[in-house]
Amino acid sequence: MCQLLGMNSNVPHDICFSFEGFHLRGGKTDEHRDGWGIAFFEGKGCRVFMDSRATIDSPVAQLVRQYPIRSINVVAHIRKATRGAVSLENTHPFVRELWGRYWVFAHNGTLKGFAPKLHGRFQPVGQTDSELAFCYIMELLYRRFLDSPPSLEAMYDALLEITECITPFGEFNYLLSNGDWLFAFRFGRNLGYVLRRAPFKPVHLIDQDLTVDFSQVASADDKLVIIASAPLTDNETWVGIEEGSLLAFDRGEPVSMEQPGQVFLR
Amino acid sequence: MCQLLGMNSNVPHDICFSFEGFHLRGGKTDEHRDGWGIAFFEGKGCRVFMDSRATIDSPVAQLVRQYPIRSINVVAHIRKATRGAVSLENTHPFVRELWGRYWVFAHNGTLKGFAPKLHGRFQPVGQTDSELAFCYIMELLYRRFLDSPPSLEAMYDALLEITECITPFGEFNYLLSNGDWLFAFRFGRNLGYVLRRAPFKPVHLIDQDLTVDFSQVASADDKLVIIASAPLTDNETWVGIEEGSLLAFDRGEPVSMEQPGQVFLR
Repeated sequence: MCQLLGMNSNVPHDICFSFEGFHLRGGKTDEHRDGWGIAFFEGKGCRVFMDSRATIDSPVAQLVRQYPIRSINVVAHIRKATRGAVSLENTHPFVRELWGRYWVFAHNGTLKGFAPKLHGRFQPVGQTDSELAFCYIMELLYRRFLDSPPSLEAMYDALLEITECITPFGEFNYLLSNGDWLFAFRFGRNLGYVLRRAPFKPVHLIDQDLTVDFSQVASADDKLVIIASAPLTDNETWVGIEEGSLLAFDRGEPVSMEQPGQVFLR
Repeated sequence: MCQLLGMNSNVPHDICFSFEGFHLRGGKTDEHRDGWGIAFFEGKGCRVFMDSRATIDSPVAQLVRQYPIRSINVVAHIRKATRGAVSLENTHPFVRELWGRYWVFAHNGTLKGFAPKLHGRFQPVGQTDSELAFCYIMELLYRRFLDSPPSLEAMYDALLEITECITPFGEFNYLLSNGDWLFAFRFGRNLGYVLRRAPFKPVHLIDQDLTVDFSQVASADDKLVIIASAPLTDNETWVGIEEGSLLAFDRGEPVSMEQPGQVFLR
């Protein structure tokens, strides 16, 4: 399947270190060779780098590894195609505008028989189940809130309700961000996160022998969370997200929704 | 002001040669230092490289110069800010999805007092007059055709009618593409194009002393058009687009609309 990588923080950070390990899974330490993409929010703006080549062969991935883009929200994906050809239009993350903000979405898993009727407000450009699910989510969010962008709490409730209409169709891990909030949902595959905050320490990658001492690059007040399909480091505490759980992150913190019946992991 | 660059062709071509000259106008041979962006369509997919730095200082521009991305539709822009801060969200080209296709837009000029009421289907993320005009165009296209994507001819008529509601507010040169068609409109600033087809010949840049022999890189059946705010080469025939004219290009050819009162240049 595919792999997901996300970052949410309270001050702009680059993701070069995490991407260094992650990109090796696109053809070297893992088998995901069918394209990749990474979206960086910078303010309300968003730029997406993508390629339908494997990360390890991609000049664009080379740029992302070497050019420290500072962001408070990042969503990245490397693909092993299950639905839809290997092409740019089927490469995650996908982007749509709603309420004057960009929304970015990446999915890990396969949906079977998922064929909702869409009403045209958001339509897939490619052929993946993933982009279809994203358009479905965006359409239902728009129909729920119309022209009034919701609070984080209202958004969380709506998103969970919509997501639970999709999970009967199969594995549905995803990351979704509007540049302020980052949502992470787990269903059917692994997804976990690590919180980084003071006192920062040296951190060591799993996919290659590389250590970065975060006490040298982060300030005492910095808070960030890294979310990934499989742990990227071997000397930090990665927390597995529970099956069926939706987590919301804001400024590097998991946000408790105190939703009865919902598991919240801190 | 800003500068525009577009390409439309019948087979995928890279734009490295034209971008080589164009990018120097982002801070070296001209004064447009407030960000730049370039959108490449690959099939229905689209990827946008952008930076709020000047092209001549941008590692992303360095990548675009060296990585030959083959596309049949390209829209690029370098910015000298007149409305909206220098930031990623104000960097052209802008992208929206309509009818399951991406639409890409870049504008050269300044609109004064342009403040249409939008109904929410498309909303600007940044603060530029340009993105507002793009959202206005997309909303009116959607309201005109609803869920039935128009033919090129119907699109042309609608686009011209909508555009003529915007020109009273100021200079409004733009490029618009959905990956098949490229529209170029001139109002208030210079915009011209050059057709390249067999027999191909060596072509020499204006902004630096560089020549490429297109007979070595293009095939006999290739047809392409390059559109730019100012000629990029000094040994080809650049045709100025007439004030107030909308041109449509499809597979490297200008398309005659036989629209009474419209100037068509071939």
